[in-house]
Amino acid sequence: MKNIVFLGKSIDNYIAGKNGELDWLDMIPNPDQLDMGYNTLMNEVDAILMGKTSFETVLGFDIEWPYQKHVFVLSRSLKNIPVKLQDKVSVLQGNEKEILKSIHNKGYLNLYIDGGKVVQNFLKQDLIDELRLTTIPIVLGEGIPLFDVLPKRLEFEHVKTEVFCNQIVQSCYKRKR
Amino acid sequence: MKNIVFLGKSIDNYIAGKNGELDWLDMIPNPDQLDMGYNTLMNEVDAILMGKTSFETVLGFDIEWPYQKHVFVLSRSLKNIPVKLQDKVSVLQGNEKEILKSIHNKGYLNLYIDGGKVVQNFLKQDLIDELRLTTIPIVLGEGIPLFDVLPKRLEFEHVKTEVFCNQIVQSCYKRKR
Repeated sequence: MKNIVFLGKSIDNYIAGKNGELDWLDMIPNPDQLDMGYNTLMNEVDAILMGKTSFETVLGFDIEWPYQKHVFVLSRSLKNIPVKLQDKVSVLQGNEKEILKSIHNKGYLNLYIDGGKVVQNFLKQDLIDELRLTTIPIVLGEGIPLFDVLPKRLEFEHVKTEVFCNQIVQSCYKRKR
Repeated sequence: MKNIVFLGKSIDNYIAGKNGELDWLDMIPNPDQLDMGYNTLMNEVDAILMGKTSFETVLGFDIEWPYQKHVFVLSRSLKNIPVKLQDKVSVLQGNEKEILKSIHNKGYLNLYIDGGKVVQNFLKQDLIDELRLTTIPIVLGEGIPLFDVLPKRLEFEHVKTEVFCNQIVQSCYKRKR
């Protein structure tokens, strides 16, 4: 049972520009279309938990629904889900621990935790077991931050670091418990 | 002629705790006393430029003065330098570009730029040529941040990443000009 964060970020730890810009995530040419650990992650998790902003961002991409695994959207304000996604997406409300319990009770144990606010709130409750952070070689200078203030230090164990396309550094950390 | 940043940081990009704590920088045992690029850096630079806080932190360590290279301290308020350091340390005032000019005119061309505020101000002026960042596997949750808001994005080229003691990840980046 674990909660995994998998995020692309700038050197200064932004996950998006001030207005949500994500263009810089693709600034390094990836001619071999390396998936950089995404498929491994997807095979490892039973479901995805994200916030409303991430959900709406994915919807806004105007592509086929990209997830094979069930998606839980954590939102108090989301009113509608597209009909074609009604079997693939569920909206949940509540605090992090209640939500986790309800997801676990449905049989989904290993989760991909996505989206800025959701990740920050899970970190605040020390509910993240793995951080897989992919650093793009840019200092954005402003934007949506990956990390927020936390009530206590969290020690991690470095598991591995890989460099993709000679430019993109991905480090995987496991929470020391 | 280049300005190099060489800093230890947490995963969430703090260079010190809220009250200046640095204990976590040594949390990973380093039995072979690897210098993690420090001597290479010192052989590469002609001088060191730091702020008053860094200078006073080093003085406070109550060790032999650790630098072989001349140290410039950027400060408007520093009143005294220990007599035994009068040949090794100079205090400078002014804006970043004026200070750089004056240091270059003295024949010091390659500089190690140290300290939170000085690094932030140099980044704001796009005066940093290399970032050598060493990540300790901890999320501090609060502290003195490495990065501040910048007026524009800065693209870097990833030069190399090394893992020390299986836990500490050091990535070196060169500014793309």
